[in-house]
This record gives sequence, C-alpha cells and structure tokens, in this order.
Amino acid sequence: MKPLSIEPLTREAFAPFGQVLETKGVDHVLINEGTTKRFHALATADTGAEGRAILSIFRGTCRGFPFAVEMLECHPLGSQAFVPLSAHDWLVVVAERADALSLQCFRATGRQGVQYARGIWHHPLLVLEREQDFLVVDRDGAGENLREAILPQPREIRL
Amino acid sequence: MKPLSIEPLTREAFAPFGQVLETKGVDHVLINEGTTKRFHALATADTGAEGRAILSIFRGTCRGFPFAVEMLECHPLGSQAFVPLSAHDWLVVVAERADALSLQCFRATGRQGVQYARGIWHHPLLVLEREQDFLVVDRDGAGENLREAILPQPREIRL
Repeated sequence: MKPLSIEPLTREAFAPFGQVLETKGVDHVLINEGTTKRFHALATADTGAEGRAILSIFRGTCRGFPFAVEMLECHPLGSQAFVPLSAHDWLVVVAERADALSLQCFRATGRQGVQYARGIWHHPLLVLEREQDFLVVDRDGAGENLREAILPQPREIRL
Repeated sequence: MKPLSIEPLTREAFAPFGQVLETKGVDHVLINEGTTKRFHALATADTGAEGRAILSIFRGTCRGFPFAVEMLECHPLGSQAFVPLSAHDWLVVVAERADALSLQCFRATGRQGVQYARGIWHHPLLVLEREQDFLVVDRDGAGENLREAILPQPREIRL
C-alpha cells in the first residue's frame, strides 16, 4: 500500500482546505480591561442561508497504526471545525479531490484546531491518544450534508 | 461588601442562562465506524438572521481573589459560548437582571463549557489559573452587540 507521509500542520499548507484554529503567530486584541487576549474570528462557521451552527463534543478513540486511509467524507452544505480539548497531537487528512493521489496528512498539535471549508474532502477523526475530546462546530439544518467516497487504492499512515 | 457564594455548575442550575457544554450525563451516538462518540448539539449558536457564528480563542488571565464583581455585560444580538481548552476549573458569573442581588456564581470544571443565551447578563471571563485558553463561539455582524452595566453595590467572590 502506498504510504501517506505526515507533514506538520501550518496555516499556509492548510489554506486550500480551510482554517487552522490556533493562537500562534496570530495578532490579538486586549479586552476585559486588559485581562483577556482575544484572537478574533479565527474562522467563520459556514452554514449557508438555511443552516445553523451547532456545538457538539466528539470523543475520538485511536484506530491503531499503521492505518489505511480507505475512504473520505465531505459536507457539501457547511463547514466543520474540530478543536482539541486536551493538548495532544492528532492527525488531519484532507484531499483536493476524492482520490488517493491528492491525499495529504497533517500532524496537528494539541493547540491546533482546524475548520474544514464546506465541501472539502477529509477523513473522519484520527486521534493518536487512546481517547481525545474535541469541540466540533458544524451545520444543523435540512438537506443532505454528508457525502462519502471509497478510495480504490488506499494509502497507509505510519507513525 | 456582600459576598457572592460559589456553587457547582450544573445543567439544571444554569438552565435559565443557557447551556452547559459537557459530556457528563449526556447521551451520545456512535459515528465513524464506532470509533467516535458524538455528543450532539449541546448548544445551537444564536446569531439572529443577519449574524454569523465566528470561532475565536480567548486567553484569560487571573484577576486575583478576592474579586469584586462591579459590572456585567450582555450581548443582545447573539449567544456566546466559552469552552475551556485545558482542564482547569473556572468561574461563571451570571444574573437574571443587571443588578447585584440577582448575581449567581458557578464554579465550572475544566470539562465544562457554557453558552450564554442571547441577552443574558454575565461577567467577563474569570479564570483561576494564571492563564487559560477558551474557544469562543459568538456572533459577528452588523449592530451593537455589547451592553454593559455598572453595579452600584459590588459583590465579592472569595475562593
């Protein structure tokens, strides 16, 4: 199985797929009489005209490695953000198209969340710890917001 | 100065003010081939017809204790959610009206976020650690979304 290498997650590398939610390298404004730094609007939830942004918690469990990336999903009607609630690294797998050749795998730190832009192909949650919680902000509303694609030629992630 | 006692944060006690964002006591659905528990729609962002939900990170610093609660703020155009990104307790101060008598102070664990409903009077971020980061989901859009009220008779929080 063709390997899929792991790259560090950076805003620049992730830009085609959405936003990285992190404070590093981001300007802030001081609010609350100077006691709070606001790193403002790192992402805007995209829920379309009919949708609403909901907040959920996802508890991911480790699937084991090496791991074969055999499918992708995307949400054609809205963005989806994942922000880790504990400071452990995790993996982000995205693709420009629903094929194995365009796959990219990023290692996010526990201080980095991501928001997948609407319609971006990505693999479901991949955690490295036994278990890790994420705050998820995505779309609720009418319409079919999940597409899945099977990859005839899976790619393998090794840690 | 009249003291303000600290109560544990529970969904029941916080219900008049918004939602508690936690997994404890909440049912989940299994997704991603059974590898992820989704605690679904713990809150819905309320941004009105014209607003959009944005994701920011707030880095709060400890203001020191005892602390005098001398003001409140509210956001008349949208909800505001705070979810701690590290597992330290923090304080949530809310009020049914913009007066000192109706103040309530809750101690949230590091596994509990809250969403203030639109228009709920609350104190700006109060952390107990030297510094703590929160993911904040609130409203972006036209209109004046901040009101502040000074409390002529402050209340004092002692740890």
